[in-house]
This record gives sequence, structure tokens and C-alpha cells, in this order.
Amino acid sequence: MKKLVLAYSGGLDTSYCAVHLTKDQGFEVHAVSVNTGGFTSEELHKIEKNAYKMGVSSYVNIDAISEYYQKVIKFLIFGNVLKNNSYPLSVSAERIIQAIKIVDYAKKIKASHIAHGSTGAGNDQVRFDMIFQILAPEITIVTPIRDQQLSRQEEIAYLQDHGIEMSWAKAKYSVNKGLWGTSIGGEETLNSKDPLPDSAYPSQLQKEGSEHVKLGFEKGQLVQVNDFAQSPEKNIAYLNDLAAAYAIGRDIHVGDTIVGIKGRVGFEAAAALVCIKAHHQLEKHCLTKWQLQHKEHLSSYYGMHLHEGHYLDPVMRDIEAFLQNSQEAVTGTVFVSLKPYHFSIQGIESLHDLMNPAFGSYGEMNLAWTADEAKGFIKIVANQNKIYQQVNSKS
Amino acid sequence: MKKLVLAYSGGLDTSYCAVHLTKDQGFEVHAVSVNTGGFTSEELHKIEKNAYKMGVSSYVNIDAISEYYQKVIKFLIFGNVLKNNSYPLSVSAERIIQAIKIVDYAKKIKASHIAHGSTGAGNDQVRFDMIFQILAPEITIVTPIRDQQLSRQEEIAYLQDHGIEMSWAKAKYSVNKGLWGTSIGGEETLNSKDPLPDSAYPSQLQKEGSEHVKLGFEKGQLVQVNDFAQSPEKNIAYLNDLAAAYAIGRDIHVGDTIVGIKGRVGFEAAAALVCIKAHHQLEKHCLTKWQLQHKEHLSSYYGMHLHEGHYLDPVMRDIEAFLQNSQEAVTGTVFVSLKPYHFSIQGIESLHDLMNPAFGSYGEMNLAWTADEAKGFIKIVANQNKIYQQVNSKS
Amino acid sequence: MKKLVLAYSGGLDTSYCAVHLTKDQGFEVHAVSVNTGGFTSEELHKIEKNAYKMGVSSYVNIDAISEYYQKVIKFLIFGNVLKNNSYPLSVSAERIIQAIKIVDYAKKIKASHIAHGSTGAGNDQVRFDMIFQILAPEITIVTPIRDQQLSRQEEIAYLQDHGIEMSWAKAKYSVNKGLWGTSIGGEETLNSKDPLPDSAYPSQLQKEGSEHVKLGFEKGQLVQVNDFAQSPEKNIAYLNDLAAAYAIGRDIHVGDTIVGIKGRVGFEAAAALVCIKAHHQLEKHCLTKWQLQHKEHLSSYYGMHLHEGHYLDPVMRDIEAFLQNSQEAVTGTVFVSLKPYHFSIQGIESLHDLMNPAFGSYGEMNLAWTADEAKGFIKIVANQNKIYQQVNSKS
Amino acid sequence: MKKLVLAYSGGLDTSYCAVHLTKDQGFEVHAVSVNTGGFTSEELHKIEKNAYKMGVSSYVNIDAISEYYQKVIKFLIFGNVLKNNSYPLSVSAERIIQAIKIVDYAKKIKASHIAHGSTGAGNDQVRFDMIFQILAPEITIVTPIRDQQLSRQEEIAYLQDHGIEMSWAKAKYSVNKGLWGTSIGGEETLNSKDPLPDSAYPSQLQKEGSEHVKLGFEKGQLVQVNDFAQSPEKNIAYLNDLAAAYAIGRDIHVGDTIVGIKGRVGFEAAAALVCIKAHHQLEKHCLTKWQLQHKEHLSSYYGMHLHEGHYLDPVMRDIEAFLQNSQEAVTGTVFVSLKPYHFSIQGIESLHDLMNPAFGSYGEMNLAWTADEAKGFIKIVANQNKIYQQVNSKS
Repeated sequence: MKKLVLAYSGGLDTSYCAVHLTKDQGFEVHAVSVNTGGFTSEELHKIEKNAYKMGVSSYVNIDAISEYYQKVIKFLIFGNVLKNNSYPLSVSAERIIQAIKIVDYAKKIKASHIAHGSTGAGNDQVRFDMIFQILAPEITIVTPIRDQQLSRQEEIAYLQDHGIEMSWAKAKYSVNKGLWGTSIGGEETLNSKDPLPDSAYPSQLQKEGSEHVKLGFEKGQLVQVNDFAQSPEKNIAYLNDLAAAYAIGRDIHVGDTIVGIKGRVGFEAAAALVCIKAHHQLEKHCLTKWQLQHKEHLSSYYGMHLHEGHYLDPVMRDIEAFLQNSQEAVTGTVFVSLKPYHFSIQGIESLHDLMNPAFGSYGEMNLAWTADEAKGFIKIVANQNKIYQQVNSKS
Repeated sequence: MKKLVLAYSGGLDTSYCAVHLTKDQGFEVHAVSVNTGGFTSEELHKIEKNAYKMGVSSYVNIDAISEYYQKVIKFLIFGNVLKNNSYPLSVSAERIIQAIKIVDYAKKIKASHIAHGSTGAGNDQVRFDMIFQILAPEITIVTPIRDQQLSRQEEIAYLQDHGIEMSWAKAKYSVNKGLWGTSIGGEETLNSKDPLPDSAYPSQLQKEGSEHVKLGFEKGQLVQVNDFAQSPEKNIAYLNDLAAAYAIGRDIHVGDTIVGIKGRVGFEAAAALVCIKAHHQLEKHCLTKWQLQHKEHLSSYYGMHLHEGHYLDPVMRDIEAFLQNSQEAVTGTVFVSLKPYHFSIQGIESLHDLMNPAFGSYGEMNLAWTADEAKGFIKIVANQNKIYQQVNSKS
Repeated sequence: MKKLVLAYSGGLDTSYCAVHLTKDQGFEVHAVSVNTGGFTSEELHKIEKNAYKMGVSSYVNIDAISEYYQKVIKFLIFGNVLKNNSYPLSVSAERIIQAIKIVDYAKKIKASHIAHGSTGAGNDQVRFDMIFQILAPEITIVTPIRDQQLSRQEEIAYLQDHGIEMSWAKAKYSVNKGLWGTSIGGEETLNSKDPLPDSAYPSQLQKEGSEHVKLGFEKGQLVQVNDFAQSPEKNIAYLNDLAAAYAIGRDIHVGDTIVGIKGRVGFEAAAALVCIKAHHQLEKHCLTKWQLQHKEHLSSYYGMHLHEGHYLDPVMRDIEAFLQNSQEAVTGTVFVSLKPYHFSIQGIESLHDLMNPAFGSYGEMNLAWTADEAKGFIKIVANQNKIYQQVNSKS
Repeated sequence: MKKLVLAYSGGLDTSYCAVHLTKDQGFEVHAVSVNTGGFTSEELHKIEKNAYKMGVSSYVNIDAISEYYQKVIKFLIFGNVLKNNSYPLSVSAERIIQAIKIVDYAKKIKASHIAHGSTGAGNDQVRFDMIFQILAPEITIVTPIRDQQLSRQEEIAYLQDHGIEMSWAKAKYSVNKGLWGTSIGGEETLNSKDPLPDSAYPSQLQKEGSEHVKLGFEKGQLVQVNDFAQSPEKNIAYLNDLAAAYAIGRDIHVGDTIVGIKGRVGFEAAAALVCIKAHHQLEKHCLTKWQLQHKEHLSSYYGMHLHEGHYLDPVMRDIEAFLQNSQEAVTGTVFVSLKPYHFSIQGIESLHDLMNPAFGSYGEMNLAWTADEAKGFIKIVANQNKIYQQVNSKS
């Protein structure tokens, strides 16, 4: 019997896949879920129970939170990556690590097929297919949802026909939760005009006033939140709890899908936004002008390539080498103030801070250089445009 | 008698310059102020009165608001320029246009000298000197403040010695106001850790709840706010009144000065931030992926060059040509919600919106392409990395 | 009867298409060739005669040389575009203009279908299909060669069965000739190691010694070669005759095809290489450092997008606006020396030359600035790295 | 007595410095030359002898060839750096390593001063001063030539007055020789129009016909030339001997000096040009499209920053990390043909070659994907521009 690994989330689509692949296609189905920070143990129990209801031969959950942080999130922080200047790529980043873990698992159990439940209209199919094809060209990809284009009703009816009676009430909003943020799709995000209602966001405002948070970074990594020093991935989760209570980090992202259409999706990513803004502020103090400038360019492309599923392109490793190296001096503390619906960076403290009155204070007269030195500087800096003007005004 | 044009703001430094240049240096001093949106008529009256008190031969105020918008702000909006992802370059932009108007005026009245009151420690001296030297190499630049490095006390004493009795109480915060934002310097901004207190910001929170604003853009320009259609510069001023009442647009910018040290400055730029974010959102709907990508790169450098006083480099005109051309389809309405201390973009409406269910909806099964077409696409997109993996995993 | 426009070159593939589409598919076939500088009138006569032999309803040749220059080549010169620093994109550029002219013609005669003879393995299919689909989504694309994958023998046999007896001897090298260069494919270019033999290149060395050529540019366009002032496209053709006699401009290009594999192709592009190098040299004298730098970045992407068939992306018009604007001062004469197999740029003369002893001579002591001004300049330019070193060496 | 390290080359300027600093300024002068591949042992002997004639307290030559390769040249090869697409930065690169070795030496012998012989008009003063100031802000820089602006006659007369009778005949061309190339300045390079005569170039044509050379690269480094496997720096020197016999690698560079004027200089850099072109060709076969694209952008800035003396900016280490990482698969052999005045890359052989018929041959029908897959690919790639066209043609 042909062994198949199914990327299983417990939802209607992948439940249909589990039954269909077992019963109609005769696969030995091994269901696998990959936790990137979105599942509670309770949810994982439920997913496991359901998986076996669907008749799978085995089910495992792979905890990929640490690897997710090490392989992707870390570099998104180093690069201050916000797609189109707003979206932390929460979902794009998750899919990559999920695909990698699934294909690893498939190879381990010597599966000949991998199935996923993506449709043919979105980004996820591209990310999954690409990574599967690149890392395991010998494994066949099976995508019943993409191929059959069934309606929800048809899927439910199919499951009932196979003796599976569950409630598949469609949630008003489709929500995808993970360590780096939650995405929210709904009726409103299918058009360009309407915002999501407050109630669509998973985290509701729970606190008033303001709260100070201290973020400790070491070589670009979040090693401490207030007085807790844990692994960066745990710090991110903890920071998210703190900030989500203020309903921070909500926005709507509009961007280019890999398939050429525009897509719009709401998101809530409290920790991601606070963490990136804090990290960036620290960098503004500790990095040189040219580090900031070239990082910005490379990071923007890092985000684009990641978003489009090109995580395995070796250029991504090259950019990561640049980003890693750039974090040498990014060590210090950032002071953040959380408030309802927004936050502000108060300031930073760092031994690597390049802003230091000993070297001259901006706008204040100082001893670091003289008026004449400043004039010499300006004269020569102006040189080329002065020449250009003289040459081209007469001609 | 040698004719000198003095860039005059009415403050202690330029008042000292006016007297010193007239009395000690024997210049015929022509004072000029350039209004870039920061002066009320009352303030201008006071500046004029004071100028004559200092003994200048003439005083004029040049209204440069329109030209400021047309030559600089327009392109900062087209490029969504926020230095280091936060600062709208409020002051950098102003200095450029002020310098240009001053040198134009000096040429008109055939002055042989231009004086300004900048110190030798900051950015402004560079911007002023560069533009003066480039546009009028034949005019000599005079900078008493930079050269003499007097203390406030010495300046006040000098003025008293020359019969000028005014109150020169030092404000706790030095504030520079203009159409594109207000910068605020003070004790806190001289270190890296402290935020400015709320009271340091010129606009205080005056409204509660939220308020909806409709921004109409035509080819990238803000042609309408709610039901008012005025010139873009008037729309910006009006939008600023609306948004400043919510204390929107405050932040602290840390960045590289032209002279190599880091500088930190608070700012409040309600209209600039709302306008840029709204404009950017409209672009995300109406521009292609590559337009967004290449615009981002060029605009970042546009901001860097402007900040550093290179406005007259011909490459700035080249970038402006790119930006202007890119705005062809940036026409539509953006819906914004103003709230205390923050705002959110609700959505947009545009005839040029590339997000349209007729062309397929993101993530939803659709008729624009088939599952097989999607698979063919992915297969070929994955091709190079698949080959790379095969070639390099065996070797 | 369904009207079909066939992109017809007179070769075996498109001859097969002509007969097959007429006889088997029942189309009213209107053959069209587009001359981008590669056909002599004699060749066009032969193509026309053959087209009618194949049974087409009509044949026209469209002379697109001028439009080719105006819409594509001009910008490749402005941008000094050499893909991977060697290939002038001779073929990529041609396909774009050919596709545009063909779809224009199809619309004019109200054809419902367009056919082309590209295979499914290369770049040309992508360029043709993309432009047809974008400009005329209502027209159906027909590609017998891509779909049927016949061998040469099968095609010849088919034509014989339909009464067409012609000699279809396969040339040892497949050659594609146009105004901007000739590409050459053969046995050697299918591997990575072998060069093409001298004999594979269309132009053979005909002259010894050296010959001086004077190229006159006006705002970046080649308006004069020696004493002849003609249209730029005629100047390019004339320059090509001069330089090809020295067997100049040969190389082998290796690059990324749009479909993800690497492709290797020989080329000979005497005029393109001489023209770009001469134009670039003139720019080095007349443009500022930042113009050169940003042009390089944008032009590299312009080449990539053009190569990949994205000519119709509006970002290409934006880049063209930048490039056009950047040519304002690119006027002058470039002196070139042609020699067997290579050439060298001797020097330039221009009223816009920024290199002028009046502004100081490189390395020579001069009066444009003093030693102290130079020291002030250097001190402040070194400032940030000096601070960085002090801060980070102690920490 | 104050200890001073003098960067000594044995020429008139630094000889004047040696005497003047000892006799007039009372320094204990320690002369040092840094060999970056331009001195023979005979020349070094002569320099040493002359140094002592000038009365220096000590003289040493520092052999920096290996470090020069490891710290600079290696990355110029990884990045295929040719400034303005022609100049390998021969001199810029040398100055950096010379300055670093000199400041190291000054610190070792606890000198309080460093002197160099650069004028105030060129690039070298900036590179020397910057590196000295950054690495040793406590050391004072002394520059008699820049400060005193003496003529050659005055310097010669001064030396004669101090009993030093040597022949200081001015060479017609000033030549700077090093491992990565030789620069040549002369009367012709002071204007824009004239080429250098053949005789000005140090290497004259010595061979006819053509010669095949095999270059072996390992992770981007030149580890073998023909059958000789030596250190990369020795391979470069050996390759230079081979190629210079064909008078290869001559050109004239025109570019922006750090001080804002344009500079023009002839150069001969046979090994640099052959090595970079060969390395680049190997990369075109072994790297992905995006590696090539992002490398090009970063490398161009690497060259700019190096040229302008910003070698110590930490961004340079970040870019080096990127470049280093990108060379993982750049291993293979490149076949080069040397001919009089020019060379051509014949082809390459590599286990990492991504061009491989097994993955489909460019333009040839193949089994790697079907016609339908190609069509699906194209359809989706065309999607966004198709939508753009439809949306914007009606509006």
C-alpha cells in the first residue's frame, strides 16, 4: 500500500482529504500537524482524535516552534521585515517551516506521496509544492482540494456518507494563528473598502492606561522581556501576551500574491510589531548609516523571496549571512510603552550606542570639530554639484 | 556698502547676527524669512518688527508654501518617504526650499553675501551652505554663530550693549514648525533613553472617540479631504488640523546626521503620517509588485539624498521623473479613522484597483485559472532551485 | 472561417504551422513577419513567396526597425544594459517588439487567433504569450510546435505529404539576426565547455590594423557616426558594418532562462557593444556619481524584466522616465578605435564634461580647495567609523 | 624625541618628507614601505638605501601581499568588482591595506605621529587619513606635501641644500604598480580626449597567436593556473605574467574621486580582468538568478565604499559575509584564451554547473515539463499585467 503523508489541520478540507485518500485512493495515510505556535495542547488533542476518526494510519504533531524561530523569525527580526511596510509575513513564514518539517517526516517514514489541502487560488499551494518538489523530487504531491474544487456542502455530504458526523459550522472569519502573528480573512477582506470589525480580531482590549516593557536584545535576538530571560521564542510568546491585552498590532495587509492577483488579509501580530520596531530602534543607535541602508534593501528582498516561497534559494542563505553579521553590535535594552491599540518606543540603552555626547551632540556646538573643519567638509561635499551647475547652466 | 541677505527667524541667534553684521561688519543687511507653513501672520508681524529693531535695511517674508509642496513634499508623498521607517523629513525638506528662496532673493537684489545662523554641529549648515555654493558660487557665505561660538548669555549681553532690550527666555523645547511637521528638541533628546513628555508636543489631545476622514487622491496628489477640494498644500494643512486634535503622528527619530554623529529629535507630523500611509495603501491596490519594489528602493535613497542636502544633484530630478510617472494610476479615495494617538486606514476605493473578484479572489477557488495551470506554474517556478538542490546535494 | 495571424519566419517550423493551421485546423491564415533589422529585401521576397506556397490567405512584412529603436533599444543604450555584464539582450528585445506588432496587426484585421512557432522549452514562448495575453486577452493563442513536439523529419514528411517540396537542410548553427545583434546556437552551446568556432559567427574578420570612429551623442542618442548624421537606428546599422569588419562584439552568454534552466548562446553584436561602451564612457564624464550609481541598479532590473517578457509592466515606463531624464547632459563626441576582435574607447569631448582643470585636477595640487579644507572634509567623513571603532573596541 | 612613522616610497615627495621631518621638525623618523606586489627585491634594496641617506632612524619594508589578498582582493573577485564596469580598483584597494599595515606598525613601535606624502587633491589622502584616524585617533597625522604645496623644483633644491644629490628626473608617466594592477597617469590623462600611447603601458606585447589557460577555482578562489596549484596571490601574479605578455587588460578609467571632481587614469591589470571575467563566468553557471542579481548590487556598493576609503565601515564586513557565503558552489575550471590585446572565456567545467541537459536544454523540446505546464506557467506569470491592462485601459 502506498504510503502518504497528509498535512493535517483538523479542518473540513484536510478531514475530507484524510477520508478520500484512504477510502477512494487506497493510500496508507499518515497525518501530521506542525505546530508553529498556533495550537494549544487541547487543540492538538482534538486534532489527533479527529484524525483517527477519519481513518488515518497514524497521526503525529511536530513541535517546530524552536526551529521556526531559528530558521525564519530570527532573520525577519534582524531584517526588520514588514512586507509593504506593514505585514510581518506571519503566514508566509509559517508555511515554509511547516513544509520543511512535513517533507522531512515523509522522507523519514519513506512515504511516496505527500498531500496538502490548499486550493489552487492562493499562495500556500506554491510554498508547499515548491518546497516538496525541491527537497524531495521523488515524492508525488497530491492535492484533492485543488483538483476537485468541491463546495463545503459537497465535502460535508461526502464525510456523512462515510459515517463521519461532526459539526462543520463555518466560522465567520477564517483565522490562522502562529507564533509570529494571526491572520484573519472574512467577508470584508474580499473587497478593498471595508475594515474588519473589532470583534473579528482574536485579542480584545483588556487593559487601560499604559504599561512599560523592557526588551533586552543580544546580537539582535530578544533574550529578555522585563525580568524574564528565556529563549527568544518564549520571549516572543510572552511579549505577545503582554501586548495583545492592549489590542496592539492590528492592521490590514494588501499585497501581491504569488499568482499575480492582489490579496487582502487582516492580521494581529502584537509581538511581531513591538519586537521589530524595538529592534529597529536599537539598530538606529548602534549601526552605521550604510549598514542601515543596505540592510533595508536586502531585507525587503528577503521578505519578497520568503513570501513567494523561495526560501530554499541559496541567496536566502547569503542574505542571512549578511544579516547575522550585521547584528554584532545590536545589544542593549529597549524601553517600550504599551497603550490601548498602539505602543511607542521610549528609548534605548546600549554599550554600543553611537549617540554619545563625547563625540559631539547634534545641533549643539561641540569640541569634536571646528567651524573651519565643518566648512571644509561642506565645500568638498558640494563640489560635484557645484561643478555640474557651472558646466550645465552655461551650456 | 556690501549688501548681505540674512536668513532671519527672529530668534536670539539671527537677531545677534543682524546687529553684529550691521554694526561690527558694516554690511547693509537685508533680512528675509521664508514661510514654509510654520508662521502665522501674527508671528510674521512680530518678526518684521524685531528685524527693524535690529537695524536691518529691509525685511521681507517670502511665502514658499506652494513651492515647498510642488518641489519637495509632493515627491515625499509619491515615494512614501519615511526616513528610517519613521520620520517624514519635516525639517530636512524645509531647509532645502528655504535655502533656494534665499539664494534667489540674494541674486535678485544683487547681494554679495548671504548669512545664516546655523551652528557648526548640525545638518542645517550643510544644507544651507551647499545650496548657496551650488546656485551662487560668487556669493560669500557668512556664519557668525558657527564662527564665534558665543553662549546665549554672551549674545544677550551683546544685544543689550547695543541698546536692544528684549526678553530672550530660552524655551524648554526648541520647536521648528512647518507644513510637513514639527520637530522638537529638548533635554530628553540629548540622550538615548528618555521619551519627550506629552507636554513637549505642540498639539495636545483634544478629542475622544473616533472620526472618519475621506482622502481623495488624484495621480498621487491629495486633492480632497472629506468634502473639501483645495490645493494639495491646503489639504495637508487642513488634514493636519483634523488629525492633530487626536495627538496623532508623534514619534522620536534617531538617525545619522550629515556630519557623522547620531541625532535624536522628537517630532509631530500628523498630516504627513496620515497622508503617506493613506497614499501608500492606495498604491498597494493600484501599482504592480515591481512598481512597489523599485519605488521603495529609489524613494529610500531620495530621502537619504534630500536629508543630506543633495537636493540639487541631478539624480534627484531623475528619481522625481520615475516617481511622477509611477503615479499615473494612483487615483482614488482612502478611508481613514482617526483616534486618540493613532489612526488606521480602513480601506480604499479606486477605478484603478487591481484587486477585483473578476480576476480571481485570493484563496478562493476561482475561474481565472485551473488547478493544472497552477501546478504548471509552480513546477516551472521551482525549477531552478530544484536543479540547484540536485546538483549540490550530491556534490 | 476563423481568422488567424501567424508569426511567420519562413523556416521549417512556421512553414509547418502555416500548412497545418490551414489544412488541418481550417483557419484562414494571415502570415506576418516583423523586420527588426535582420532581413534583407531579398530575404523578405523569399519569405513572401514561401508563405503563399504554404497556402496562406495573406502575407505582410511589418518594418518595425524604427519602433524597435524608439521603444526598446534607446533605453538599453541609456541604461548601458548588458545582461550579466556581457549580453546586449539582442533577442529578448526583438521578441518584445515583434509580439507587439503582431498583436496590433491581429487586432487590426480582427483575427480571433494568433499562432507562433515557439517550442515549450525556451524564452520566446513566454514573451510572445505574455504580450498577446496582456494586450489581447480576447484572442486565442495557438502553438502547434509547442503542443505537438514533432521532429524535423516528421515536419518535412508532413509538408511533402501536402505537396510542398523544399530543401530544409538544417544549418549547422541556428542564427537570429537583428539590429541589436545576432545570436548563434549550435552543438557547442548545448554544453558549458566549448566555444563556438570562428566560422560560426556571421561576420568574419575583413580588416587589419585599426580604424578611428567618431560617435556623436545627443541626450544619449547616437545621432552621428563620423561625418554621417542619420537617424539613430541607421547610425547603429552603419556602425555595425564598420565594426563587424573587425569581427568585434563576439561572446558567449550564459544566463537564466525564464523557465528556470540555464541557457547558453553565442552572439555577435558589434554595434551594440561599441555603442554601449562609448555611451557609458560619455556618461562617466557628464553624470554625477549618484546618477551613475542609481542608473546602474535600475538598468540591471530593466534588463531582467525585459529579458523575462515583462516589458508591459508599468514599472518599465517608470524606469524609462528615469532613464530619459538622466540623459539631459549626455551630449558629446566619443572617439573609438576599432581593431581586430576588439576595440577601445580613446576619449570624449563634451560641453557637459564634469572633468575640467578649472575645477581642480585629480591628484594635482590645485586652487579649488585648501589643505585645511581637505582635512576638515576627511575628519568629518571619518567621524562615524571613528565613533564606531571607539565604542565597539572597548566593549 | 617624538617618534614618527613615515610612509616611504623612495620618491621625491617622501624623500623630502624624510629630510624635512627629521631636520626641520625634529622627529625621530621611522620609514616604512608596504609591499603590495609592486616592488621587486632590488627596488626594495634601493628604497632602503635611500631612506637611510635621508637620515631616517630606521627603515622596514612590510610584505603585505598575503594580507592584501585575504582582506581585499578576495572579495573583489567574489564580487566581480569593476568600478564603472571597467576598473578593478587596483590603487584604491592597495591604499587600504598599506594604511592598515602602517598604523599597525606605528602602534607597535609606539609612534605618536604618522606622516604620508599625499597631496590635498586626490583620493589617497582620504584613504590614509581615514584609516589612521579610525584605528588610532591618538596618533597625529603629518602631511608636509599637502600642507606646503612645494613644486618639484623647490623640493629638489631643498634636498640639495641638505646635501642630498640624486637624480630626480620626472618620469613622463607616474606609475603605481601592485598585485591587482598598475595605474598610469600622464599628460594625456589630465584631459578627457586623449588615450595613453602604447608605450606608456608597462607591459608591451611580446607574443602573437593565442594561448590557452586553465583557471581552477575553489569556492571562488583561484587555486590553480594550468598545472600549478599555489596560493591564490601567487596564482594571480603568475596569471599576470602570462596575460601581460599579450598586452591584455589595458583601459582608461574615468570616475568620481572622493573629493567630488572627476579623475581619469590609465591602467593595466591583466590578471585582475582575466580573473574576474573567468570567475564571473563560472558563477553564471553555478549560482541562481537571485544570487547573481543581489551580488551585483551589493558588490557595486562594496566597490564604491572601498574606493572612498570606507573599508572599516562594519557594513563592509556584512557584505563580505554575504559574498563569502555566496561562493559555496563556485568551484570548477574556466578555460581562457589569451590573444594580443584581448582574451576570451571559452567555457567552464564544474560539478556545480546548473546547466545540464538532464534538466532540460534551452530552446530544445524536453522531458522536464510539458507544453501544458509551460502554458500554465505563462498564464499565471502574465496575470498581474493582464489585470493592470484591463483595469487601466477602460479607465
